[in-house]
Formats: sequence, C-alpha cells, structure tokens
Amino acid sequence: MFREMTRDDFELFWPTFSRVIMAEETYAFDPNMTLEQSFDVWCKVPLKTFVFVEHGVILGSFYIKANAAGPGSHICNCGYMVLESARGKGIARSMCEYSQKVAIDLGFDAMQFNSVVSTNTIAVTLWESLGFAIVGTIPRAYNHSRLGYVDSLVMYKSLVEV
Amino acid sequence: MFREMTRDDFELFWPTFSRVIMAEETYAFDPNMTLEQSFDVWCKVPLKTFVFVEHGVILGSFYIKANAAGPGSHICNCGYMVLESARGKGIARSMCEYSQKVAIDLGFDAMQFNSVVSTNTIAVTLWESLGFAIVGTIPRAYNHSRLGYVDSLVMYKSLVEV
Repeated sequence: MFREMTRDDFELFWPTFSRVIMAEETYAFDPNMTLEQSFDVWCKVPLKTFVFVEHGVILGSFYIKANAAGPGSHICNCGYMVLESARGKGIARSMCEYSQKVAIDLGFDAMQFNSVVSTNTIAVTLWESLGFAIVGTIPRAYNHSRLGYVDSLVMYKSLVEV
Repeated sequence: MFREMTRDDFELFWPTFSRVIMAEETYAFDPNMTLEQSFDVWCKVPLKTFVFVEHGVILGSFYIKANAAGPGSHICNCGYMVLESARGKGIARSMCEYSQKVAIDLGFDAMQFNSVVSTNTIAVTLWESLGFAIVGTIPRAYNHSRLGYVDSLVMYKSLVEV
C-alpha cells in the first residue's frame, strides 16, 4: 500500500536511509547528514514523498519533485529507497510504476533521473525495463566508496504522447 | 575586473536578471521570481557569486556551486548572465574562463552545465570552444517562450588530468 510519508515514518525509515547515504554507492547525498537534514532533503524539499507499506512495515519510500523551475518544470525527478531486507522483491519497480502515475496526476510530462550511478546495474537495468532511456553519461561524476570515480547516467522517460 | 557580488550589485544587475528569466529562452528559473527570491537563487544558494565590472559598470555575473552533494560534490555548476548592451563582446567567455580558475582554486575537478537550451547556439558554440563536451541531451526539457518544447543539453569539462 502506498501513502504519503509522515515524520514518524521517516524516523522509522532512518536506519535504512542513513545506511544508504553512508554507503556512498548510489546517492549523491552528503553521507554525514543528520536525521533532520535528511528529512528536509527527502520530505520537505520535494513536492510529495510516499512510503510503500506491507503488513504495517515500511518497505520503501520515494519522493517526487520538479527537476527544474519555470520552463523546465514539466519534468519531474524521483528518488527511491528500499529496506535492505526487502530488496530483490520488485518493490523499487512497484514504486517507480506508482511514481509515474503520481507524476501524471501532478501534471508532469516526463521523469528524469540526474545521477544514476553507472555501476548500480540493478537500477540501470530496472529503469530501462520500465522504459527509461540513458540520455547522458557524466564522466567520473560519482566518487564510489569502493570503486572510486565512476560515471553517472542521466535517464529519462516521457510520460505523454509527443 | 572580477570581484564577488554584493547585495547592492545584485540590485543594480536586477533589470538584466529579471529580463533574462522573463524571456524564458535560456534559464530554467521561475520567470516570476521576485528580486529577493532571485537573490537567494543567484547569490545565497551558490558557494560564490562574482561580477565582471568595467569602468564601474557591472557587465556580467556568474555563480559557482557544487553540482551535487557527497560523492558528487567534486563537480561544480556555474551560471552566467551578461548585460544586454554588452553581449557579443566576449564577456561570457571571460567569465567562463575565470570561473574555471575559481573552480580549481575551490578544489573542483570538473564543471557541468545541467540545462543548456539547445536552441541557444551562441552558448553551445561558446562552451564547446572552451572545451566543454555535450554529454547528454534531454528531450523536450525546456519550454521555450517562442519555440515551444526544445531539447536541453548537459555539457561537461574536466578541469584536471585524469
């Protein structure tokens, strides 16, 4: 079940969130952010933030926001995180599918990911299977904790007939 | 001469700034931003903001900031604006060259432009002549006031030997 994320939800989700940012393998977030700063980034800056809940447990969360302002505000940006013990079960896929519906309801025409770490092949393959295309490759844009500087990908999907 | 931009400088530069954002031909900024909101975006959010001054007149301005956080914070992002009556005189080129020196001094390894409007051929050609490469093309990412939806380009230049 999807519903909007509350402050309490975020605190429950914080162990997952903090491990993801501290791993420095997928997100270009400051790994030293506090819970408060992370709540701002994940829940306050975005337009909306959702949780995916099963049997009362938060298994994943995603945010949606405009990727740019004014003449660029018709494209949205989303970020997804899944509880470690719930990975590999299609939750990111469900969240991305749901986020596309939310995006259309909010009036967005397309969805863009600005920094998909190229070594995160599970994500790249998943987004491609959901219709996203790699539209850019930024050289050495991500300083991976184990692999050093690796490329980041810009991925894009139109949500309307053009 | 380059120096850091003050609040007074920004107020003097505001007629140029407001015309640029209201034209909706180059920047993905909200065209309805107030002076205060624009000052935030141009001078407060960035790491540093400079003016290019000649004979006491502000002919241009640029900002520099990290393009992402944490593992993405080694790449900077800049934005440049030139006084209308001073365009075509190499001021954007001078500012970009100077901004690269500032970037290196600040410890950045590369510079990235996230949204160069593809129809802004003067800018695209200038950045290419300064060593930037087009590393991405976002379809219909910019709603141009005269041309409708046009592509945006992601441009990138490494500032270090890799």
